[in-house]
Amino acid sequence: MMAVHLENGRISLQRRPKPRRREGYALIRLLSAGICNTDLELQRGYYGFSGIPGHEFVGEVVESDNPKLAGRRVVGEINLACGKCEWCARGLERHCPRRTVLGIVKHPGAFRELIDLPEANLHLVPQNVPTEQAVFIEPLAAACEILDQVKIPRGSRVGVLGDGKLGLLVGQVLLAHGAEVHQYGRHKEKLKIAETAGAGTHLTGGKLPQAAYDFIVEATGSQEGLKQAVAMTRPRGTLVMKSTVHGTVAIDTAAIVVNEITMVGSRCGRFEPALRLLKERKVRVEDLIADVFPLAEAPRAFRHAATRGVLKVLLATA
Amino acid sequence: MMAVHLENGRISLQRRPKPRRREGYALIRLLSAGICNTDLELQRGYYGFSGIPGHEFVGEVVESDNPKLAGRRVVGEINLACGKCEWCARGLERHCPRRTVLGIVKHPGAFRELIDLPEANLHLVPQNVPTEQAVFIEPLAAACEILDQVKIPRGSRVGVLGDGKLGLLVGQVLLAHGAEVHQYGRHKEKLKIAETAGAGTHLTGGKLPQAAYDFIVEATGSQEGLKQAVAMTRPRGTLVMKSTVHGTVAIDTAAIVVNEITMVGSRCGRFEPALRLLKERKVRVEDLIADVFPLAEAPRAFRHAATRGVLKVLLATA
Repeated sequence: MMAVHLENGRISLQRRPKPRRREGYALIRLLSAGICNTDLELQRGYYGFSGIPGHEFVGEVVESDNPKLAGRRVVGEINLACGKCEWCARGLERHCPRRTVLGIVKHPGAFRELIDLPEANLHLVPQNVPTEQAVFIEPLAAACEILDQVKIPRGSRVGVLGDGKLGLLVGQVLLAHGAEVHQYGRHKEKLKIAETAGAGTHLTGGKLPQAAYDFIVEATGSQEGLKQAVAMTRPRGTLVMKSTVHGTVAIDTAAIVVNEITMVGSRCGRFEPALRLLKERKVRVEDLIADVFPLAEAPRAFRHAATRGVLKVLLATA
Repeated sequence: MMAVHLENGRISLQRRPKPRRREGYALIRLLSAGICNTDLELQRGYYGFSGIPGHEFVGEVVESDNPKLAGRRVVGEINLACGKCEWCARGLERHCPRRTVLGIVKHPGAFRELIDLPEANLHLVPQNVPTEQAVFIEPLAAACEILDQVKIPRGSRVGVLGDGKLGLLVGQVLLAHGAEVHQYGRHKEKLKIAETAGAGTHLTGGKLPQAAYDFIVEATGSQEGLKQAVAMTRPRGTLVMKSTVHGTVAIDTAAIVVNEITMVGSRCGRFEPALRLLKERKVRVEDLIADVFPLAEAPRAFRHAATRGVLKVLLATA
């Protein structure tokens, strides 16, 4: 089978043997996959990654123990958990200390023609959800995670910093939840997507409002973002941290203490609420697609995805 | 009257006129006052402070509008709020944006023979609480603030980083709450106080336990403390930030995001729960007194308080 290989920052295509299907696992034929900022960070060498990247995908089950999965379109949770520890028992497989992670930690990723993943990780894609929308399920779940962690009353004004892929999904999830979303970003054309979705939009660059929001989501992916987010949070407010920035960030912790701000780290989420949003057409993820490349053109797709201002780049199989 | 004056890092004694009592204010004769780390930071010039420092005190009301206060021992909340804004209406005068702060922001501090403070800020000291214990009310309330902000189930294991004055008070408050407290510090003799109070104690220096606590309180007052606290917090755990460190702290925010840690900035607290703890003898603050100096010897008292390893230094009037 064909697989994308990442090593020393170089993306190439390789022929690989078909994965051996272990018990409890399914083999899934790739239909569509998304290139995520994390993939671009892996390419930049931040985590010493080498292997097959990719963790956002939709596929069709070709082999499985469970006959109900056969031939069905599925998406897959990316954390492969031990299933036995305290975290797994609490339904928090995403924090299992023995987990591997699809295309990130010790499990070959989704940018290959055939993917092996535990059946427990799979979710059927509702029939009315097109494949090119379902491929957003993983980042959409990450956006939904915010509502699992923080109680945001409907009608709350929420500031969302960042107009990248994750920032725009966060904005849409919060709008679907009934929040009044103020999206802050640097790109007019991206903010346009947020505006169409129903958010108020603010082109950053000048002075940002200080101590203005009870709820702020930081999704800029930049070091500057967190500092700005702290300054924009009201006393006793909550700041959700969505950016995984490489290295350390210098923070004025005194401002956090004096204003008694709560900062909540937020990563992957459950797929269920994200699938529901897609099924009920509460979010418009299709607006985020910049381009679709065949899997065989992955090197070019990566270059395009890394271009400033480009939103989601998809890889598709024939 | 005699007052302590701080300017350009120098502590001196000055003669000042008796404060003019405004409507709604009381005049309070100082009995005992505590030197706080914040006072030492003001001395180091971190906030460009110049004037009378001091915000931890017990006094006796000598003039007031309210006859019930006359001649009584009182402690005073340090934030002087506008009483009219949204924060004041919510009972969060401590976050009133127009507040001044006793001995810190635009209100002369407590290190003077006569203190003027709004009567609304005053609390009567219960008769069975000695003055030298009541003087701890402000930092004790700051320790109690944690329980107002974070739901810590009784019986929880809580790591407390720091064996300074605030760290030891935090440990005692959490013990009184029914938590299993593990106190981490650098000073054997200070940890002894925590041990007497019922905490497990750990002399730091070597390797600290990683991802070990669902609840961590960082009260080291150092830049290193926060990094260690993040590493000691379990996934989905809560880290309470009690240190106000000058300048910025470099943090690995990715660890906070990946482990979905919640960080809660925590500052001043309500006096009521702290007074209750003293009244019911649930905490032993007297163990924290290092020395008592007459107000007239404030310069020497400040030097002593700034000495490494010295706990609470009190200033007393005759």
